[in-house]
Amino acid sequence: MKRVITIIAALCIGLVANAQQALWGGPQVESPVINADGTVTFRYQAPKAVKVEVTGDFLPTQKIAGEFNGQKFEYDAPGVRELKEGPRGVWEYTTDFVVAPEFYNYTFRVDGLSVIDPNNVFVNRDVASLTSVLLVPGERADLYAIHRVPHGSVSKVWYPSATAGFDRRLTVYTPAGYETSKAKYPVLYVLHGIGGDEDAWVTQGRACQILDNLIARGEAKPMIVVFTNGNISQEAAPLENSMNYTRPTMQLPQTMEGTFETAFPEIVKFIDGRYRTIAKKQSRAICGLSMGGFHTLYNTLNYPDLFNYSGMFSAAIGVSDPSVSPIYQNFDAKLDAYFAKKPALLWIGCGKTDFLIQANRDFMKKLDDKGYKYTYLETEGGHIWKNWRIYLTEFVPLLFK
Amino acid sequence: MKRVITIIAALCIGLVANAQQALWGGPQVESPVINADGTVTFRYQAPKAVKVEVTGDFLPTQKIAGEFNGQKFEYDAPGVRELKEGPRGVWEYTTDFVVAPEFYNYTFRVDGLSVIDPNNVFVNRDVASLTSVLLVPGERADLYAIHRVPHGSVSKVWYPSATAGFDRRLTVYTPAGYETSKAKYPVLYVLHGIGGDEDAWVTQGRACQILDNLIARGEAKPMIVVFTNGNISQEAAPLENSMNYTRPTMQLPQTMEGTFETAFPEIVKFIDGRYRTIAKKQSRAICGLSMGGFHTLYNTLNYPDLFNYSGMFSAAIGVSDPSVSPIYQNFDAKLDAYFAKKPALLWIGCGKTDFLIQANRDFMKKLDDKGYKYTYLETEGGHIWKNWRIYLTEFVPLLFK
Repeated sequence: MKRVITIIAALCIGLVANAQQALWGGPQVESPVINADGTVTFRYQAPKAVKVEVTGDFLPTQKIAGEFNGQKFEYDAPGVRELKEGPRGVWEYTTDFVVAPEFYNYTFRVDGLSVIDPNNVFVNRDVASLTSVLLVPGERADLYAIHRVPHGSVSKVWYPSATAGFDRRLTVYTPAGYETSKAKYPVLYVLHGIGGDEDAWVTQGRACQILDNLIARGEAKPMIVVFTNGNISQEAAPLENSMNYTRPTMQLPQTMEGTFETAFPEIVKFIDGRYRTIAKKQSRAICGLSMGGFHTLYNTLNYPDLFNYSGMFSAAIGVSDPSVSPIYQNFDAKLDAYFAKKPALLWIGCGKTDFLIQANRDFMKKLDDKGYKYTYLETEGGHIWKNWRIYLTEFVPLLFK
Repeated sequence: MKRVITIIAALCIGLVANAQQALWGGPQVESPVINADGTVTFRYQAPKAVKVEVTGDFLPTQKIAGEFNGQKFEYDAPGVRELKEGPRGVWEYTTDFVVAPEFYNYTFRVDGLSVIDPNNVFVNRDVASLTSVLLVPGERADLYAIHRVPHGSVSKVWYPSATAGFDRRLTVYTPAGYETSKAKYPVLYVLHGIGGDEDAWVTQGRACQILDNLIARGEAKPMIVVFTNGNISQEAAPLENSMNYTRPTMQLPQTMEGTFETAFPEIVKFIDGRYRTIAKKQSRAICGLSMGGFHTLYNTLNYPDLFNYSGMFSAAIGVSDPSVSPIYQNFDAKLDAYFAKKPALLWIGCGKTDFLIQANRDFMKKLDDKGYKYTYLETEGGHIWKNWRIYLTEFVPLLFK
């Protein structure tokens, strides 16, 4: 046995030594640490730094005044805290409050420059930014954690898009038991926000964990979940498309001018052809965040026979231009036609300080005036993933009952 | 149209402003840049830094003498280059050589502390370390790039491990056409090295790109590829198991004491049950790197009726202890029994400066002495992913002919 240990140690040494990928270049300091009293400590080693700060959504937000195109607005910016330098140049900050259960993102600012936590291997990519990740378990955040429950399969599959003229990538969740059952399943389509892609809900949104856990608790029906890529000009997420390691760009063309919605039925057709779905309106749902809420709205209104359940999460309502696509024309008539078919659920969620709250309230006023029913959840905070995860956990249990 | 642009811009601003995830906190400087002359420029902004260096496998290695347990050894360490400070505290280094096509990893060292490139969103996790990634296209590296060819599906699926007592995760590649065909497919099992997991070959190894491209070129048969997790005590990769965001540890228990190999048939059984496989030896292959080469060797010898093709990539040969498991006993008798059944291929690859080269040569001498046939490829360099990608591209075309 000693020989094995020695040789394994030698192997590891070999890896340290040889690995040009620095296989074992492990943590220098421990960060972040969830302390027994519920506070969290962040550490960053930088003996020559002058100032080290941490910022992230675990901190209370601060109001910042902004102006764009002559339009003034106020927004919630993430809080910032300074770390204090200790021995060996290790800077440290411990929250003076218990950090509530949640899936958080944070970064350090070292002399003003943003860096992720080099001692935390857990990182999320959101469009072109990386952030470090901290999961504080408990309460609703338990739905975001991985438990020893039956897990669905998560697949990256490619569908031929006649509209785009090339194959495009989808993320597809099939619930535990799908492969061994002969049953047909309902389908939920989940759409990302501007700049996101088919990975966003799976990484930042924790959607597959939410589904696994809700299904295991008996709080949601087993369902197939399809995460689309709403950037119709893009084959797949950055890193996963034929642009390879080209830097992702901020705003992609053709995201909000009708093409994605026009092409949406080809995705539904592909999914119904590939998977054992219940291929009818009663068993089909759609939801999305921000731009994905906008896409959800127009997919819902333009295809009133496709979706029985629709969820608009912090939806970018009121930004469509009818001149760019028939998809955005005859809004009121489409709205009437949609409700005439008695959909099972129109669900709306928005944060109190979301910059889109007024647009959502205007839309709900229109629904009220017309006497159309919907479900509304207003939460604290703004246009943030925390809210979108909450909305998903609230929306999914209502489906396919 | 102007309205749409304004509102999309406002949306983006809203995202910048509100997103506590800093959705659009884009690049501060451009790095890395592949220049027209084939050199590569790396940049890092740090006005207050004293010294900024870059290290990675794009640089020539340097010989370093080491000692462990009284045993002296020499190893290839990655080269290091200093960046020079320019305007706005932007440090810069341009290679004085053309960087050959390859999939590279690199990191910066800022005042001695390792950091990934904050301007490069492309990052690989290898066990507990993050590195920035650079793909220089061309030559063999074209096999590592994503092209507009038919793409296989890549799925994360869970199998019930009776041995482990819990569900465990596999990555499964099904080739383009699998879902629409009724055909049965051969299966290749691909095993990672020490500390790795079911993600390693897919991220660092570029295995799914290699398969897509070789199949599209007609240089490999369409096949199912299964990436196992060789740490039998672990459900899944870090982040994807019920330890959630617990820091990954270096050496996991039960990786090289026979349990994984003893339990391997339950994976084969699961795959043959779940997928349309050709469930016989002629259509089954296995390969692995380092510890995965070790696992490959013992799976091959202990189950001479399972695998017709075996690939040992920089295999950790000669480190087994017969006292810990029957899997490691009667080596020579098993070797004889294996060759008596006339396997189609035993393929061995190793780097000239790999610390395991002598162990591999000793093993091949034994094969030579016994008159057993194998295929051997010796490459430049050491125990590095560059070699393992090369070995996979050489091994896969030989399968199932």
